[in-house]
Amino acid sequence: MVHIRVINPNTARTMTESIGHRARAVAEPSTIVTAVNPAMGPESIESHYDEALAVPGLLAEIAAGEAAGADGYVIACFGDPGLDAARELASGPVVGIAEAAMHAATLVGRGFSVVTTLARTTGRTRDLAARYGFADACRGVHACDIPVLELDDPSSNARKVVADLCASAVDRDGCDSIVLGCAGMASFCTDLSRRVGVPVIDGVAVATKLVESLVSLGLRTSTRGEFARPGPKKYAGLLRDFSV
Amino acid sequence: MVHIRVINPNTARTMTESIGHRARAVAEPSTIVTAVNPAMGPESIESHYDEALAVPGLLAEIAAGEAAGADGYVIACFGDPGLDAARELASGPVVGIAEAAMHAATLVGRGFSVVTTLARTTGRTRDLAARYGFADACRGVHACDIPVLELDDPSSNARKVVADLCASAVDRDGCDSIVLGCAGMASFCTDLSRRVGVPVIDGVAVATKLVESLVSLGLRTSTRGEFARPGPKKYAGLLRDFSV
Amino acid sequence: MVHIRVINPNTARTMTESIGHRARAVAEPSTIVTAVNPAMGPESIESHYDEALAVPGLLAEIAAGEAAGADGYVIACFGDPGLDAARELASGPVVGIAEAAMHAATLVGRGFSVVTTLARTTGRTRDLAARYGFADACRGVHACDIPVLELDDPSSNARKVVADLCASAVDRDGCDSIVLGCAGMASFCTDLSRRVGVPVIDGVAVATKLVESLVSLGLRTSTRGEFARPGPKKYAGLLRDFSV
Amino acid sequence: MVHIRVINPNTARTMTESIGHRARAVAEPSTIVTAVNPAMGPESIESHYDEALAVPGLLAEIAAGEAAGADGYVIACFGDPGLDAARELASGPVVGIAEAAMHAATLVGRGFSVVTTLARTTGRTRDLAARYGFADACRGVHACDIPVLELDDPSSNARKVVADLCASAVDRDGCDSIVLGCAGMASFCTDLSRRVGVPVIDGVAVATKLVESLVSLGLRTSTRGEFARPGPKKYAGLLRDFSV
Amino acid sequence: MVHIRVINPNTARTMTESIGHRARAVAEPSTIVTAVNPAMGPESIESHYDEALAVPGLLAEIAAGEAAGADGYVIACFGDPGLDAARELASGPVVGIAEAAMHAATLVGRGFSVVTTLARTTGRTRDLAARYGFADACRGVHACDIPVLELDDPSSNARKVVADLCASAVDRDGCDSIVLGCAGMASFCTDLSRRVGVPVIDGVAVATKLVESLVSLGLRTSTRGEFARPGPKKYAGLLRDFSV
Amino acid sequence: MVHIRVINPNTARTMTESIGHRARAVAEPSTIVTAVNPAMGPESIESHYDEALAVPGLLAEIAAGEAAGADGYVIACFGDPGLDAARELASGPVVGIAEAAMHAATLVGRGFSVVTTLARTTGRTRDLAARYGFADACRGVHACDIPVLELDDPSSNARKVVADLCASAVDRDGCDSIVLGCAGMASFCTDLSRRVGVPVIDGVAVATKLVESLVSLGLRTSTRGEFARPGPKKYAGLLRDFSV
Repeated sequence: MVHIRVINPNTARTMTESIGHRARAVAEPSTIVTAVNPAMGPESIESHYDEALAVPGLLAEIAAGEAAGADGYVIACFGDPGLDAARELASGPVVGIAEAAMHAATLVGRGFSVVTTLARTTGRTRDLAARYGFADACRGVHACDIPVLELDDPSSNARKVVADLCASAVDRDGCDSIVLGCAGMASFCTDLSRRVGVPVIDGVAVATKLVESLVSLGLRTSTRGEFARPGPKKYAGLLRDFSV
Repeated sequence: MVHIRVINPNTARTMTESIGHRARAVAEPSTIVTAVNPAMGPESIESHYDEALAVPGLLAEIAAGEAAGADGYVIACFGDPGLDAARELASGPVVGIAEAAMHAATLVGRGFSVVTTLARTTGRTRDLAARYGFADACRGVHACDIPVLELDDPSSNARKVVADLCASAVDRDGCDSIVLGCAGMASFCTDLSRRVGVPVIDGVAVATKLVESLVSLGLRTSTRGEFARPGPKKYAGLLRDFSV
Repeated sequence: MVHIRVINPNTARTMTESIGHRARAVAEPSTIVTAVNPAMGPESIESHYDEALAVPGLLAEIAAGEAAGADGYVIACFGDPGLDAARELASGPVVGIAEAAMHAATLVGRGFSVVTTLARTTGRTRDLAARYGFADACRGVHACDIPVLELDDPSSNARKVVADLCASAVDRDGCDSIVLGCAGMASFCTDLSRRVGVPVIDGVAVATKLVESLVSLGLRTSTRGEFARPGPKKYAGLLRDFSV
Repeated sequence: MVHIRVINPNTARTMTESIGHRARAVAEPSTIVTAVNPAMGPESIESHYDEALAVPGLLAEIAAGEAAGADGYVIACFGDPGLDAARELASGPVVGIAEAAMHAATLVGRGFSVVTTLARTTGRTRDLAARYGFADACRGVHACDIPVLELDDPSSNARKVVADLCASAVDRDGCDSIVLGCAGMASFCTDLSRRVGVPVIDGVAVATKLVESLVSLGLRTSTRGEFARPGPKKYAGLLRDFSV
Repeated sequence: MVHIRVINPNTARTMTESIGHRARAVAEPSTIVTAVNPAMGPESIESHYDEALAVPGLLAEIAAGEAAGADGYVIACFGDPGLDAARELASGPVVGIAEAAMHAATLVGRGFSVVTTLARTTGRTRDLAARYGFADACRGVHACDIPVLELDDPSSNARKVVADLCASAVDRDGCDSIVLGCAGMASFCTDLSRRVGVPVIDGVAVATKLVESLVSLGLRTSTRGEFARPGPKKYAGLLRDFSV
Repeated sequence: MVHIRVINPNTARTMTESIGHRARAVAEPSTIVTAVNPAMGPESIESHYDEALAVPGLLAEIAAGEAAGADGYVIACFGDPGLDAARELASGPVVGIAEAAMHAATLVGRGFSVVTTLARTTGRTRDLAARYGFADACRGVHACDIPVLELDDPSSNARKVVADLCASAVDRDGCDSIVLGCAGMASFCTDLSRRVGVPVIDGVAVATKLVESLVSLGLRTSTRGEFARPGPKKYAGLLRDFSV
């Protein structure tokens, strides 16, 4: 029995529920998925500023997961915020959804394109692709210019806009697959695959399976050097409770 | 229920059995693992020449898997021979063990070193790391100079030699994990992890979990361009039966 | 008259004063240097975890600087924490000290080596070098294994240990200059240059001059896309006051 | 007197003859060119699958060349199939036509574009450019979507289609030269150079001159490590005769 | 008091004056700027040939600067001709304007595009970006096809053509800033920034501030290895006076 | 009949003769090799300064070659000085000896190491390897610290020192071949190959064969963009005769 804590780093509870639903749908029956979001921080993550300020809440959720005996963690925001810090804190594996989706994309074809929400986040996506070794595999990053929290507004035409953008990305970039660049798009995934004719990859699902796999293989973050648990240290002010 | 065909591309049946054993040990209870090896080709793969000539037999096993309804495939040789060709032929996902192990290594730390059999194969390992995007993550490739088929000879001290090499690689390279560079080392994995103090990664186990995951997510090789199924074509002579 | 806010992202006031002293020593007479540190967060930054949790306090200091009319900012921690987020928030230029030192190093020679505090931070340094384009120029990263807050303990032999490490880095790496990998080493810089025989570069000094230069040239962070000011958004809990 | 064996790795004898004609046209009068093709394998190479299955026949032709005293070899298919394995087996130098053409292109300008047959092969071309160090120099890869064996069908308008594609590649990519991406295009080369106004490079011709040059300089593949001759080994089944 | 020698490597005195004017406008009041050009060489630099032949005159001006006690040097041509050689000869820092502008661009955004004079120089610009570590940051290089010496011809519409090209580069490349690719465009800089809406960067101004900063920090080219002063040597013929 | 002009860019006539001898030894009987050196410039090239000042004389020799009807050119100094400018001026192909040797090295193995004269030139060698696409293939650059003009002093033990350095480079770097990093080492080549046990590559010989091959294939530098012949222009002072 594997216990996975899926952390939506923003404070939008509806999105957390949708993410949890998606993770549970792909997990093994014996896996327990707990989907949570922080009590503090931004209600959506759409800038470097939002991302930086989502991290304390995310780390608090990792600490809570450790107390609750979680075996592994998914960071369910496409910027993979706080991933390195989370790996220091967690005793089990931690996987980000951008990381997971990009890894999977390189297993089902040579090149992928990312379809994401806002144009201002494309730089971060390129950064992550380079950091993970996929600078060449990432053929394009395209923004639909729909804010994160409007993605599942039924009155919006988000689903159609995203589908059209996926199709045009495949044509323009000659990519083999599409990576969805926002946890809020997870529920579109099955439908999009059918429409676009190439694999459409949702990082929430992939990260859940990767964490499940790593846990079952007994693989966890190396504690030898960079990712060893941080030592005790005085923390001041608003963040005083973060001292480990 | 997922049916995974694990293909040892050489003709050494003992090694096939050991690989199958390893894959079954990590697969979900509901997964069926069939471990096979070709009827043709080299009895071990220790050169580019061996590797090239292992591919026809490997592809025959993919074709047999398709006929038998396999859902996905593992190529269980660290050179990942014939991976691109196998992806064209198979309807489900195909993962190589070098690829799988390197992906996993980058999820549990920043850098990894590879411990392999013969020095002459280190160039191929560097090639694969570059091809998969892990040229920077791969910190060193070290050969123990034990031929593949002597690895599990109980009278050899292979296990000790490999353990010492892993330990010195960690020291010299400052890596976060060790990747085992030969399917014949899979059975050493658990023991080595304990001895070396960093994650030791065996590609057979990881590839099995990755294929299981991709199948359960409905992800398979993109058929849009490069990896579309090859069209019918005349094949001559010894290989006449390979016409698709 | 240029007003530069130099932000030490940890809460160690002595270090802030030493950093301010160093910045004032190199600034033009007409430049006003304000050296500050956050009221919240870790007292030193020695892990990804510390770094992530230093960012909210850093961003609060950027916001305070904006209110006070600062023309530009220096982030005085060698991990350059929160740099992208700070650039979104600040109307003037923001420069990190790792960034500044590496830029300067490539202007006075082909290759540089970094001498830093703890071994666990070397991965982050390599990350930054790659992010700034200096992966090839960075020839080595060496840790003296002295905690940040012991660097200026007069009873320690930190200065000698660092000097010896600089000298051995020059020999081993064949580098043209040394970059000091911690703001706490800034006061060693002049002395080390004399001892080591190659330029020794302290990012606090360089970043101060770069911000001064950018301000006087009228250059500030582009507001066109990625670094545009974040829009208003609901922030919850402990971080509720960070809503812009 | 130099004896070069030019191997067309597919079984299309007409193409072999045309390749041999091209090689003889550029060789020194004292050079003997033997153009051969395997007795086994695919009649054209248009997928990873075809390429993998062309290699055994290619290696048989290398072995036959060794028996016949060949001084060096050209692999006359633009995927450079089996190049590393051939280098292990041959005592003289082996050069692929993609490799040769790309090397020449970087000697007559900064960037080149490749004009090839089928779109599905462009990934392999990019792979080769990266493998040889020419990822930056390769500005584009464009497919004319004419099957290999129809290239010299006089009733097709292949020559015109290829010429138009070359011209548009020069315009779009701003390249300095064109590399022809198929041995079947060799006979178009002179005519295309005239039409397109930049050097048009046919790998068959260049590879022939490179092998001639290497032989006359006494340069052959290093036998020190990776490319040492494979040791004797049991080969089974259909491929039993490949044991060295 | 800092003495900076700004060297225009071509022989066009009007351009030298305009460059000197620009440098003085941004220098500290206490800085002395001497703007010079060689007595020998091409009147403008528009090819590799011109650039190579501008270097002897440039080096003569470095030597003259050393005799006159200059503290540092700017090479005011966008190809940064003779930069490495000048660094060997000068006792103070030497900065090229392409180098300076590209460094500044990466401090005010992620990506920049270059707007330059003639299309034939774009290869050199890409070379420099790669050499300095900014291959990824450089998003495009666009030529206005106006010869260098016509840029400030009041009867030409150079200013408008350049402005339009900057605007279209921002749109097409999604860059955060524009780098002006010719010292002759320096006087356009302020006006262009207003029109284009992103930072427009003139290397003459930035290089002046960088040299001023390096001098005030006591940083100069490392004399340890590659950039040590050349030893005495016999020089023959026309260049006999260049013996150091 | 091919006419190749081999240009030694320094003024040491003995070295020119030795280079010419080497080139003639490998050229086809029908090829005419003219070995020349400039009348102006440094007597040896051991710094960026020397290299820059060797270029005018080199270009004068290209111009003289054009007048004399040369079909192609070799630049016989391992820094490949003036290569881009020479390509603009010459109507036939131009090949540098570093370029030639590195190309050949990648055809006879995966990695090469360079053995050169002075340590201060190793930066330039790395620069060239990167420029030509061989940054990964170049495994090491080692200096014997013998000045260029003492290499063929019979009283020196240059040959032994170089041989020992080659042997240790092979051991340390695990390279497949050695590239000789100075035209003055050309005469050692055959002897070294015997001693070291891997291919030892002399760029003078390879460049001669490459130029011969390119000429016979009708391949010359592209005149489309960057390398088009420079237009007429006023040249002043000492260099006034360089106006084209």
